Amino acid sequence: MSVPQARRGRRSSGDHSREAILTAARRLFAEQGFEGTSLRQVARESSVDPAMVHHFFGGKDELFAASVELPADPAEVLAGVETLDPAVRAEAIVRAVLRLWESPAQHGLVAYVRGTLGSKSKTALMREMVNRVILSRVVAGLPGTPEERHLRSNLVASQVIGLMLVRYVIKLEPLAGAAQEDVIKMVAPTIQRYLTGELDGPGATT
Amino acid sequence: MSVPQARRGRRSSGDHSREAILTAARRLFAEQGFEGTSLRQVARESSVDPAMVHHFFGGKDELFAASVELPADPAEVLAGVETLDPAVRAEAIVRAVLRLWESPAQHGLVAYVRGTLGSKSKTALMREMVNRVILSRVVAGLPGTPEERHLRSNLVASQVIGLMLVRYVIKLEPLAGAAQEDVIKMVAPTIQRYLTGELDGPGATT
Repeated sequence: MSVPQARRGRRSSGDHSREAILTAARRLFAEQGFEGTSLRQVARESSVDPAMVHHFFGGKDELFAASVELPADPAEVLAGVETLDPAVRAEAIVRAVLRLWESPAQHGLVAYVRGTLGSKSKTALMREMVNRVILSRVVAGLPGTPEERHLRSNLVASQVIGLMLVRYVIKLEPLAGAAQEDVIKMVAPTIQRYLTGELDGPGATT
Repeated sequence: MSVPQARRGRRSSGDHSREAILTAARRLFAEQGFEGTSLRQVARESSVDPAMVHHFFGGKDELFAASVELPADPAEVLAGVETLDPAVRAEAIVRAVLRLWESPAQHGLVAYVRGTLGSKSKTALMREMVNRVILSRVVAGLPGTPEERHLRSNLVASQVIGLMLVRYVIKLEPLAGAAQEDVIKMVAPTIQRYLTGELDGPGATT
């Protein structure tokens, strides 16, 4: 994280290019999605040489991660989840989410959620991030068609995002103050059904 | 909705008082909650006579409703839900939510959610509204202690709010484009378990 003192004189122009690249990347990822955006396009849009984009960020994955500006690293938070048997994965997911949100990262996460949902273009970027970075890990190894796996991942997201909002942002009581283990017991069965249960079974509509 | 032309000359001072009352009400309801806020206090805070608050809004319920500025009337949306047997109430709740969000009110609802979650004081006002106006109807007539009913209502809220965000605000596919009846089949069992099911039963944690 240290900046070589000798290069300080050149920082402002480098910072300027880096910021220009990130601004263009955020707009393009939000408008066209991750797949539809190329590094070449980001370079053209920010008036820098493609080599400069590589120099600052490496590849497209790293540029995307930098442009999303997450306050925590999903790969780290969900470490181990994608290798767990899907039949028992729900508890690990809820546990990981609660551990993260009850860590010192909470303040940054609440600010991220507020800032993101308050802005249409940031929400589009969040959609790409949730799909690419989070949900792909949550449903890794699940049987079924890609369409079914995506649908299951969306349902998991609906319960996890709703839980985060109600417990940490809107703060409805008594759920906001409930013990972690109680929350896990109440919510994990929902996540488990969305992952591997019957979605359209008997008793679904009465 | 028509304004008598003859009174136009006096409108600005009346509008001014009305706005001052609403501004004070929003701040006080957000900071102290509905129960902790009196009409007398709102009047004092906005430097108007208490009679003026009554003149513009009637009672505290009406002042609260006006200060929240909901784009739809929850009483109307949830009409009939509170009188349904709790054992079969989930489907009606999901159906009412989907019907509302897929009506012309959708644009206003998305804007309301964005504006509310983007602001800390508006979120506090939303918390009061969700508790007083929505959840009280959702869990009306449920057995159990008030604490248990509140917890169940919070869990219902976590799934409903998460569904609204994922389907209408973040727009994850394929859930955003799924047919209403499919969404009801997939999500209603979750809501039904939160309303009347075993929350801490076997299989909750594996």
